[in-house]
Amino acid sequence: MAFDVTKPLLERIREGLENGRAQAIAADLSEMHPADIAEVLDQLRPEEANTLYDALGEELAAEVLLELPEDKREAILGTYTGKEIAEEVIDQLDSDDAADVIADLPEDVQEEVMANIEDAEQREEIAELLAYDEHSAGGLMAKELIRVSVEGRMRDCVKELRAHGEEIDNPYAIYVVDQHERLVGIIPLKKLLTTSLFQPVKDVYEPDFISVRADEDAEVAARLMEKYDLVALPVLDGRGRLVGRITIDDVVDVIREEETEDAQKMAGMEALEDSYMSSTWLDIVKKRVGWLIILFVGESFTATAMSFFEDQIAKAVVLALFVPLIISSGGNTGSQASTLIIRALALGDVSIREWWSVVKREFTVGLTLGTVLGIIGFLRVALWSQFVTVYGEHWLQVGLAVGISLLGVVLWGNLIGSLFPLVLKRLGRDPAVSSAPFVATVVDVTGLLIYFGIASVLLAGLML
Amino acid sequence: MAFDVTKPLLERIREGLENGRAQAIAADLSEMHPADIAEVLDQLRPEEANTLYDALGEELAAEVLLELPEDKREAILGTYTGKEIAEEVIDQLDSDDAADVIADLPEDVQEEVMANIEDAEQREEIAELLAYDEHSAGGLMAKELIRVSVEGRMRDCVKELRAHGEEIDNPYAIYVVDQHERLVGIIPLKKLLTTSLFQPVKDVYEPDFISVRADEDAEVAARLMEKYDLVALPVLDGRGRLVGRITIDDVVDVIREEETEDAQKMAGMEALEDSYMSSTWLDIVKKRVGWLIILFVGESFTATAMSFFEDQIAKAVVLALFVPLIISSGGNTGSQASTLIIRALALGDVSIREWWSVVKREFTVGLTLGTVLGIIGFLRVALWSQFVTVYGEHWLQVGLAVGISLLGVVLWGNLIGSLFPLVLKRLGRDPAVSSAPFVATVVDVTGLLIYFGIASVLLAGLML
Repeated sequence: MAFDVTKPLLERIREGLENGRAQAIAADLSEMHPADIAEVLDQLRPEEANTLYDALGEELAAEVLLELPEDKREAILGTYTGKEIAEEVIDQLDSDDAADVIADLPEDVQEEVMANIEDAEQREEIAELLAYDEHSAGGLMAKELIRVSVEGRMRDCVKELRAHGEEIDNPYAIYVVDQHERLVGIIPLKKLLTTSLFQPVKDVYEPDFISVRADEDAEVAARLMEKYDLVALPVLDGRGRLVGRITIDDVVDVIREEETEDAQKMAGMEALEDSYMSSTWLDIVKKRVGWLIILFVGESFTATAMSFFEDQIAKAVVLALFVPLIISSGGNTGSQASTLIIRALALGDVSIREWWSVVKREFTVGLTLGTVLGIIGFLRVALWSQFVTVYGEHWLQVGLAVGISLLGVVLWGNLIGSLFPLVLKRLGRDPAVSSAPFVATVVDVTGLLIYFGIASVLLAGLML
Repeated sequence: MAFDVTKPLLERIREGLENGRAQAIAADLSEMHPADIAEVLDQLRPEEANTLYDALGEELAAEVLLELPEDKREAILGTYTGKEIAEEVIDQLDSDDAADVIADLPEDVQEEVMANIEDAEQREEIAELLAYDEHSAGGLMAKELIRVSVEGRMRDCVKELRAHGEEIDNPYAIYVVDQHERLVGIIPLKKLLTTSLFQPVKDVYEPDFISVRADEDAEVAARLMEKYDLVALPVLDGRGRLVGRITIDDVVDVIREEETEDAQKMAGMEALEDSYMSSTWLDIVKKRVGWLIILFVGESFTATAMSFFEDQIAKAVVLALFVPLIISSGGNTGSQASTLIIRALALGDVSIREWWSVVKREFTVGLTLGTVLGIIGFLRVALWSQFVTVYGEHWLQVGLAVGISLLGVVLWGNLIGSLFPLVLKRLGRDPAVSSAPFVATVVDVTGLLIYFGIASVLLAGLML
């Protein structure tokens, strides 16, 4: 049942657009889901997409717009005046989507759009939503919901539902408020069908409910909905008044964004604020250069560490050849370990109190992995030395130095990698921050000391 | 509104348990949400958790069990016989949760549990769900849903809802089937409140709906619900018959798991099948060792690459000192770039067709980052050389070689890192697979050639 934009379909559309049949094509497409139409637009060239978009009906066009990737949306809106956006797009959208679309516009266009929204109530609602930080619960909520007074009867719920049902796709529940607009309880939709319409609301509503404050972080709202399996979450202001609600479809987007931010942090950069394609190259440089410099400074201690062993390297150049191999093995093991622990922490599968069982387990794992790589490393040297002369007559000792160092560096990298996220979490920091490259850097510097230390002992009196 | 397990609360509970007041504490806790009770249990010692769990009422205990991390759930169920699990736990659960709990049990216990489920219909439903692959749509669905015949009237919907409302927390919609049990349409719950109960179902239902086949991958179901903003997705068998439905709360878990698997793959390992804490150390070694060996073999070409420059290193040991610094900078940049592109691909923000704009942009970004790191690298050598003698009289040339190599390696790493996921995607492979460490390995080997190549030119006739 999944939809794929096929080549023949695209070619038929392109041909039609060239022949000026945009209206006919738009009429055909209008049978499709807006998300699918957006996929078609996304695959067309910009001019083609604009022509086709203009031919869609206003209501459908607005829905399609919401489904487009950010950069494509900006490109299409860029061809409209603020007045057109207000009248043709914003007027068709729910308050939360309207606010999101406006927030992404250049500032001068934003003002023009706001000034041209005719419905005063809608303008006020959007202005209220725009006032919230976009990463807060308030920035995520919509104003549209069904509310009844706690003084009413169940039939008032049905009346409200009939009055506002059109503008709300999924009501999920009815919100019960007191005379100060404070949320006092919730009535699930199915309750309406299983209780008499003449019962007072106050005898039916559920007084236990989960809610979130508008100024809380959007991720807090997402975590609450995830933890308590909610499809809609009421949002309250500082005085407990009902100001909006967050629905699960928006939360799924928050989760994907949160995961993207975590992945970016784990790769050693700051999280991008916008999507990749709608960030400028300078935005991207700014988010990346800071951590690269920090890692560079950290890594530059490898040069210092190696300079301690300059004499040994001069006497046995062969030692230098294995430096990248040994330290990168430690880094790879460490980044596996840190990723495992970061994800286990994120899913609530591991808590900091369990650090000792993590250490015990990762000691065994690291020892096993180190033994495997150590043996392979030793064999690599032993076998090659039969064919090339670079390892010299002391190939056995060189091989042992490489093998034992690998065992040590892998074990060490694995312990550092698994403990580092736990330490960050303990300190109240985000465990994802730059974990993999940071661990790799620490392991590189210390790994060199392990390698040259072991080599100095094994090769003393032979090559050194 | 978020709940935190505080230390005083935990201590009060522990004290109570020691004094044999488990029943009273369980009664207190029963006011809380099952997810919160699970958090309390998770923080207690195993024996304490078992005692408290046994004191919870059967229905609540079953709900709490679902919210516990996998390893804790296994520990608690391990103290029960198969008969007890069937009668006290399974009997309280929805079919999908029951099947999940049973699937996680050891095989002999599974059989004992199944044999002890008294309700024949429930046993059959669970057996059906267990037959599906746990990573398929069928493995994710629940059997519980509200269905009506297309021949009926709207009041039949209400009747069904009243009959089954108790066992279904969120009906969301009513599913309309023909006489062969094939799904023909859907009635949103709010429609029931806005249409006459005497209307025939066939005049009201929406014939356009999104569905998924039971044998499709669970991630396909998740993507459909995400794309089309659905809270419930009907599941059909090969003949179009309605066999169950997937709800959004289960999909959120699938998304988190999918993201975890991607993160593990990006860190250069295979995805774990179970959670970290319920995997054995051997499971973990198996998932990690394969990629570590592949990366090791790839990285061992660094030794080969460096052996080409053995003479240069022997003459100018100082060159070897900067090897880790230069190659790791390329690796860090590459892993940033590959993560950015992998996430942009995952979110549908970048498509393979846009590879050329990615290359252009990442060329500019890489050039900028390389210039910054190159200048810092040069200054590092230039400044240090005023205080230490290790860089010798040709520190200027050494500094230039380091700086220019950094520029080249960072630019190169950035291009490889951003293109590699696009190439994998184009080949129909998962772009996340081992991206960061694999890119780092490729950049390490090629980066050495760049570095020693540049150094050979700049230092020819001076140190070399």
